[in-house]
Amino acid sequence: MHPIVTVGSVAFDSVKTPFGEASRVVGGAATYFSVAASFFTDVRLVAVVGDDFTEEEMRVFAGRRIDLAGLQRVPGETFRWKGEYGFDLSTRETTYTRLNVFDRFRPVLPDPYRSTPFVFLANIHPALQAEVLTQVDGPRFVAADTMNYWIDGTPEELRAVLRRIDALLINDEEARQLAGESNLVKAARAIQRMGPRLLVIKRGEHGVLMTRDQGFFAVPAMPLDTVIDPTGAGDTFAGGFMGYLASAREITDAVFTRATIAGSALASLAVEDFGLDGLLGASPKVLNQRFAAFKRLTHFEAL
Amino acid sequence: MHPIVTVGSVAFDSVKTPFGEASRVVGGAATYFSVAASFFTDVRLVAVVGDDFTEEEMRVFAGRRIDLAGLQRVPGETFRWKGEYGFDLSTRETTYTRLNVFDRFRPVLPDPYRSTPFVFLANIHPALQAEVLTQVDGPRFVAADTMNYWIDGTPEELRAVLRRIDALLINDEEARQLAGESNLVKAARAIQRMGPRLLVIKRGEHGVLMTRDQGFFAVPAMPLDTVIDPTGAGDTFAGGFMGYLASAREITDAVFTRATIAGSALASLAVEDFGLDGLLGASPKVLNQRFAAFKRLTHFEAL
Repeated sequence: MHPIVTVGSVAFDSVKTPFGEASRVVGGAATYFSVAASFFTDVRLVAVVGDDFTEEEMRVFAGRRIDLAGLQRVPGETFRWKGEYGFDLSTRETTYTRLNVFDRFRPVLPDPYRSTPFVFLANIHPALQAEVLTQVDGPRFVAADTMNYWIDGTPEELRAVLRRIDALLINDEEARQLAGESNLVKAARAIQRMGPRLLVIKRGEHGVLMTRDQGFFAVPAMPLDTVIDPTGAGDTFAGGFMGYLASAREITDAVFTRATIAGSALASLAVEDFGLDGLLGASPKVLNQRFAAFKRLTHFEAL
Repeated sequence: MHPIVTVGSVAFDSVKTPFGEASRVVGGAATYFSVAASFFTDVRLVAVVGDDFTEEEMRVFAGRRIDLAGLQRVPGETFRWKGEYGFDLSTRETTYTRLNVFDRFRPVLPDPYRSTPFVFLANIHPALQAEVLTQVDGPRFVAADTMNYWIDGTPEELRAVLRRIDALLINDEEARQLAGESNLVKAARAIQRMGPRLLVIKRGEHGVLMTRDQGFFAVPAMPLDTVIDPTGAGDTFAGGFMGYLASAREITDAVFTRATIAGSALASLAVEDFGLDGLLGASPKVLNQRFAAFKRLTHFEAL
């Protein structure tokens, strides 16, 4: 079992879905990632919050394997995001994004973090992702997320990051955009030529598609009768995926495959409640039951 | 192994995709269904063509286990459809639909067809689907397809059919519309209460979701680097699904599950070429290889 260092946003989210609203709940990509990954291993969180982030709110990290030495606390307001989901939760509109203290964030890894073997660069400016990579010494496995905003806006910086990572975790639309190719198989191959040997394509309610040396692996999303809030599902997936990898004795294709299930299981728990509540309320027993449910959902005997 | 009787359209399709065009190729729901199902069992085709349907064109059915005694040939033109697909093949626009001889089509089952134990009612007017059901004696398993046009336009007739069938095969949008429910799990349960104990939801490039007594089964679509023409993929899936069921000794949940793979495998072959060419060119060996590819795509060891 190895620790993971992650860098990304910690935020206050306000979310409206057809099932209700949640205001100023703790969110952010690095938050979802850390909580999810901490089910499997020790997580070192590098992020920034403002002085409006209370001790009470800090308790989402408490009692978990999350080290906060890299969490900067600076004067000003914490990153805030507000969004609203459409009736089938497959579309959302951002009401506002206020970077606040995140605008001047420069990730600084505490010395003990520099030898962390597993690294996850959440969706932030690729120049910041690169800064993190210069601060870690020979990591064993580096994964990153990104989004259309950086694919369009900072293509050179993004390409530089892609050359230095082992895995890229993005959604299908981003994969098509990054590769400039509508066929997802061809897009995946094109992205692998940019650097990452592993590509994990997140498809929301349609599950996950992952490259492997011997061919794709695909897992559908768990059909759920209660989906309350999809916010953070992708980051939760990434946390479960990386957490499982880091907890494995060695990294094989079979481990990548099971890591995909681990991420999918945690993501399916996360969306069943607002904000982090679905994750925070999940016990290891519930998680194991969800693993088993994925096996039942997808298993068939060869014809 | 049992025979299947199917009723639906035989048509001339003209298709334009980003990869080329095909003009006046033999298509239609009942055609795709019959060719696919004939990989597994004997198929009895009830449909109508005009006198413009040549002997040459009839050869798509030749050398297969497809009985044509129920294929009416009447004066006039065969059903014609023309459509054009968008750049990622997930959207299409119908240029025209000319029912022609199909407009006055009344399905008539030849006497020997009346005892056929497996029945597939392709996507036609639910009143015609009901007419077919009155002509079969105590079928063992009846499945049907339908579409938004009938869900909106002839809801009463459709409800009457739903009460008489064992399985409904529709796409996810249609399932949501039929149930008036955006959550697919709840929609599935609502549709089951309308009659069919089995619901198979076709999700195009995202695969298939099926109800079972002990919970859902889901299979992703095969990631393909060459998708030329998705026309008929859903009907091909239905043919593989029903053909596999009809060829099984008994119908169990495990058989339903494998039937879903059989349908998915044939559909994945169908879309790799224009019109029926992908199916017509597929050997049993190629089909078996595709089955195995689905197992590799989805298999994982329990965590």
